[in-house]
Amino acid sequence: MIFQVQQIRADIRDFQQSSGVDKVIVLWTANTERFTDIVPGVNDSADGLLAAIQAGAEVSPSSLFAVASILEGCAYINGSPQNTFVPGVIELAVQKGVFIGGDDFKSGQTKIKSVLVDFLVSAGIKPTSIVSYNHLGNNDGKNLSAPEQFRSKEISKSNVVDDMVQSNHILYKPGEKPDHCVVIKYVPYVGDSKRAMDEYTSEIMMGGTNTIAMHNTCEDSLLASPIILDLVILTELCQRVAVQLQGEEEFQSFHSVLALLAFLCKAPLVPPGSPVINAFFRQRACIENIMRACLGLPPQNYMLLEHKLQKNFLSHMSCNDKVSALKKVALVNGTSKPLTNGFCTHEDDVAYAM
Amino acid sequence: MIFQVQQIRADIRDFQQSSGVDKVIVLWTANTERFTDIVPGVNDSADGLLAAIQAGAEVSPSSLFAVASILEGCAYINGSPQNTFVPGVIELAVQKGVFIGGDDFKSGQTKIKSVLVDFLVSAGIKPTSIVSYNHLGNNDGKNLSAPEQFRSKEISKSNVVDDMVQSNHILYKPGEKPDHCVVIKYVPYVGDSKRAMDEYTSEIMMGGTNTIAMHNTCEDSLLASPIILDLVILTELCQRVAVQLQGEEEFQSFHSVLALLAFLCKAPLVPPGSPVINAFFRQRACIENIMRACLGLPPQNYMLLEHKLQKNFLSHMSCNDKVSALKKVALVNGTSKPLTNGFCTHEDDVAYAM
Amino acid sequence: MIFQVQQIRADIRDFQQSSGVDKVIVLWTANTERFTDIVPGVNDSADGLLAAIQAGAEVSPSSLFAVASILEGCAYINGSPQNTFVPGVIELAVQKGVFIGGDDFKSGQTKIKSVLVDFLVSAGIKPTSIVSYNHLGNNDGKNLSAPEQFRSKEISKSNVVDDMVQSNHILYKPGEKPDHCVVIKYVPYVGDSKRAMDEYTSEIMMGGTNTIAMHNTCEDSLLASPIILDLVILTELCQRVAVQLQGEEEFQSFHSVLALLAFLCKAPLVPPGSPVINAFFRQRACIENIMRACLGLPPQNYMLLEHKLQKNFLSHMSCNDKVSALKKVALVNGTSKPLTNGFCTHEDDVAYAM
Amino acid sequence: MIFQVQQIRADIRDFQQSSGVDKVIVLWTANTERFTDIVPGVNDSADGLLAAIQAGAEVSPSSLFAVASILEGCAYINGSPQNTFVPGVIELAVQKGVFIGGDDFKSGQTKIKSVLVDFLVSAGIKPTSIVSYNHLGNNDGKNLSAPEQFRSKEISKSNVVDDMVQSNHILYKPGEKPDHCVVIKYVPYVGDSKRAMDEYTSEIMMGGTNTIAMHNTCEDSLLASPIILDLVILTELCQRVAVQLQGEEEFQSFHSVLALLAFLCKAPLVPPGSPVINAFFRQRACIENIMRACLGLPPQNYMLLEHKLQKNFLSHMSCNDKVSALKKVALVNGTSKPLTNGFCTHEDDVAYAM
Repeated sequence: MIFQVQQIRADIRDFQQSSGVDKVIVLWTANTERFTDIVPGVNDSADGLLAAIQAGAEVSPSSLFAVASILEGCAYINGSPQNTFVPGVIELAVQKGVFIGGDDFKSGQTKIKSVLVDFLVSAGIKPTSIVSYNHLGNNDGKNLSAPEQFRSKEISKSNVVDDMVQSNHILYKPGEKPDHCVVIKYVPYVGDSKRAMDEYTSEIMMGGTNTIAMHNTCEDSLLASPIILDLVILTELCQRVAVQLQGEEEFQSFHSVLALLAFLCKAPLVPPGSPVINAFFRQRACIENIMRACLGLPPQNYMLLEHKLQKNFLSHMSCNDKVSALKKVALVNGTSKPLTNGFCTHEDDVAYAM
Repeated sequence: MIFQVQQIRADIRDFQQSSGVDKVIVLWTANTERFTDIVPGVNDSADGLLAAIQAGAEVSPSSLFAVASILEGCAYINGSPQNTFVPGVIELAVQKGVFIGGDDFKSGQTKIKSVLVDFLVSAGIKPTSIVSYNHLGNNDGKNLSAPEQFRSKEISKSNVVDDMVQSNHILYKPGEKPDHCVVIKYVPYVGDSKRAMDEYTSEIMMGGTNTIAMHNTCEDSLLASPIILDLVILTELCQRVAVQLQGEEEFQSFHSVLALLAFLCKAPLVPPGSPVINAFFRQRACIENIMRACLGLPPQNYMLLEHKLQKNFLSHMSCNDKVSALKKVALVNGTSKPLTNGFCTHEDDVAYAM
Repeated sequence: MIFQVQQIRADIRDFQQSSGVDKVIVLWTANTERFTDIVPGVNDSADGLLAAIQAGAEVSPSSLFAVASILEGCAYINGSPQNTFVPGVIELAVQKGVFIGGDDFKSGQTKIKSVLVDFLVSAGIKPTSIVSYNHLGNNDGKNLSAPEQFRSKEISKSNVVDDMVQSNHILYKPGEKPDHCVVIKYVPYVGDSKRAMDEYTSEIMMGGTNTIAMHNTCEDSLLASPIILDLVILTELCQRVAVQLQGEEEFQSFHSVLALLAFLCKAPLVPPGSPVINAFFRQRACIENIMRACLGLPPQNYMLLEHKLQKNFLSHMSCNDKVSALKKVALVNGTSKPLTNGFCTHEDDVAYAM
Repeated sequence: MIFQVQQIRADIRDFQQSSGVDKVIVLWTANTERFTDIVPGVNDSADGLLAAIQAGAEVSPSSLFAVASILEGCAYINGSPQNTFVPGVIELAVQKGVFIGGDDFKSGQTKIKSVLVDFLVSAGIKPTSIVSYNHLGNNDGKNLSAPEQFRSKEISKSNVVDDMVQSNHILYKPGEKPDHCVVIKYVPYVGDSKRAMDEYTSEIMMGGTNTIAMHNTCEDSLLASPIILDLVILTELCQRVAVQLQGEEEFQSFHSVLALLAFLCKAPLVPPGSPVINAFFRQRACIENIMRACLGLPPQNYMLLEHKLQKNFLSHMSCNDKVSALKKVALVNGTSKPLTNGFCTHEDDVAYAM
């Protein structure tokens, strides 16, 4: 094992030297591996994992690649669903201050699901049954026809609806979930033209039912390729971002577990204890607003208040003046008298009042 | 005509009195009317319109209802696609300071389209052909089988993709648009169980094609009913919101054309000169953030920065302290030295630097 | 007009001579024309039509081609939906003993409809609503976007379910029909990749409903091309078939209106007074059994009686012996005594008894 | 075991007596059992099976019901997919001259598949990939979520395309088959409203592809119930049919394995050595023509020759006269001279010649 890790490290160094690139970021696009059990002493800590590799214990190939990359100081991204990032790998990345991200390219069916479920729940339509069938005929499909590998994929695909369901306590009682079923079949003839067939059944007003059936022809590689590029580019960009907290001198980087990549991943890897966000538009807003912050722009709020008021004098102001002009928005009673004055705001000069 | 307007006004007053309600908000759920031509002198100004009504010129029934409501000081919402809100009606509403909103309940196919197109364009997938077929068998369907009425509906449904397409200058050149086709047929047997069949064809990487075909069983009335309730409730709530601009004493209400209702409408009516936003999640964020502002909360930015940093000490802070602790986010070069210090920010104490 | 007919006739002769082929069969694959009104004296008789052409009256291009072909003794097949075969053309073909056939290639959506409706009705499932949407982006689609041409297509497509519905008097009362709606739209982007979206709603037992939604990607030209070949080959083959009636010496050909081609046509042209059969499998059995007859084989009956009896001694017999061995099939009462002896059979030696 | 068989036999007798019916036919509508292995000496012969039951060996419940029914002289029909009819049960039925039939109600997805594949292959369109997904939430679905039971169902559903594929040696080389995949999932929410999602990919001319995607809402019980009735009614009717062979005095019944029921079954049980026909319309023609034979009518041949000839004098004849009037159909050369005179016909007086 240790020889394999050394070989990968040497390969990374050779590649960097021979290609003359400034930086190397390693991304796993290989087939899905089977799920790895977390074994205390073997892969649940950085030291344990390094010792296990030294001792020749069984460690998954993708975890070996991750360890080698981290030891070389190269960010490592996992585009497949298996749990490459056992606790020992995560701890090692944090120790070394190297970015890791994943898991599993969000290219087709799951991506639309993260949009549609968010939409339905946001619109007050309650999904009660979500059934997702896939078939594909490329090597990825063949590999997933083995039950152990499918298990990894199934786990990766199954929790995509959870945060959206939990975000609406009116539609769903605590612990309540829609029926959710994911099937992947290997059908050689369709080749790389992955087919997704989904059915969303939802409860609407007065006992009614809304049913959406969908057939989606996802060219697997052509949808995944730009995601590969975006993952690498985003990771590299994040390596240049630092944050300075109030009262501190030092700038700090993002957490080693690069949650920003969630937008492009089916099963987002987040720092321990962080919430997992699967909703497509919230993930996108996260990236957009962090990019805006880097440019010194405020986050998007979509209020368009300057277009919503009676006196539209704002249209003659500059962008910055507009914002500071909006001093107070108040919920008033019938006599147009504000009930309260602004409280609990984070901005002294852009106060909202109730 | 003038007698009809007087009768409607009397009916509104009678209803308010007999029911004992505090406020009346009038909402048009009747069938689609044919499209109204804008005739100078007749319906292009408030005065002209009132004179035309007095003189017995042809004015559409829904415009008569709108005028009567506005004269009674009652907000008027149009749930059908016809252009009830001719310039004269809009001007009258602005003069009287009464809310008007519409047009056309966004209940089924168009709602999902406003989500899917937003998603596709946001994900870098370029829709090149969008074909939307509908059939329904209720009275609305029967009415729409008349070409004049269908024309109103077609206009209402056709521009839903425009703002999303225009928002991405990389995918679409100026003036470029996907093929977009909308068909509505009257099929008595299916009754109120409106069926929408859509096909989205998109260009992806390297000449590939992504095709989504969808069959959506939309129970027409059951999807529309909560929208009716929400429109009225939101309108009433907006009647209680006032905004105070910096340096001004007076609070002002929203513009008479209540653009906030766009979330629930296929063809959003906005104040003259305002941009039309059809993207579902941007519309929703608008409402959510205005509601948050009324409560004194900052808008949602989905950055979750407190979970993205290496030193996660923020988790022990209160909500307000967290925000002010995030002093600077900087795009740095390889040496972790910030390239610039914050510029063009709207908040002095929450600076983002580049 | 007469010059055009003469030119077409000259072209046919030239082609035959220059190419050296034995026979010419002319097939119209050009775009759909608008529907032709039947005008007494102009196109309702052979003589009238020829006189009208001579006089320069308006006659559709496809009818001119048909007349020229017939006068040259060449079979003429119409692959488009317009009514090329006005009564005058049909009479001329009968007079000249030349085959004509059509109308409208049955390539995609209508073909499957002729199968599915036959299936549903045969299985006791009652279609109550059939909605068929099409869009295509080739020249045919562009041409059909003109209302006059679409009218021809709509007529051609609309009566495909009639004979199947009328064949089941238990499911449908006299005059009762399912709702049936056909839409064709021109969507340039999809090009030749014609898309058909169908919905079949059917009543089943105890007030239940069966709904089938279908998305069919029909490559228009690739589905139509083999039909073109088959139409010509079948027509040529039929030119070699003659039938001798009992007690007659002379052999006679098929009727000039070649109903056998119905299998490949959306709106089958049949001899005046003949029933129109649209059911796919009945049309296919017709061709198969006529081909079998030409080979001296009995028609297929699918009974497989030799495999259904207790004493399976038939398996050792020759094909012809088997048939003659099946002397009687009888419906018997409990005592195994036949109720009656064979009546009304068409075969003396292969009697079926009740 | 033997006590259970005795109990079932007693129950059948009690039911017949208490209800006063003339006949009892037993039909299994219970859940799917797991697949039974064929064990020599235990269930591969009638004697072995009866001895095994006597000795208390493991025999599936449905086989026990079948044995009990057969011993009581009652026809037994299996509406589920498991192999109730092990060789011992079949031999017992033959010995006792009792009808057995099955397996597995053909109610929804498989029924349409038996139509569509037949259609595609008949039309020269070559299915290369057939993927069938199902989900349902009733007890049948729950039971099928156990792998052993699903195995029975999968076998029952998988061979439906075989005979149709083998019937066309031009499209498929010997041994060639389309990819075929069947999935059934238990999704409680949809209840009895079984959903079938199918995709048929076919090769057409010049490397083209035809893709059909289908969503079928099959109310499971409402589609199955009429099949239950039809199976019992058809079985009872078949008990009244006898066939007399030429040169024999005795009438014989159908074979104990009642292949006629194939029309209503997914995995048709046929007498050993008989071909299995899954094509829907051939199965239907079989029943129709046997019914016609019982009435003394010739089988349907769909030729409609009386409408296809030039001299349509047949229209004035009676039905029987028409048939005998069609003396010869001949394939002739250009001189209208028949090449040969009729050979190999089964009817001396209705000859077809080549």
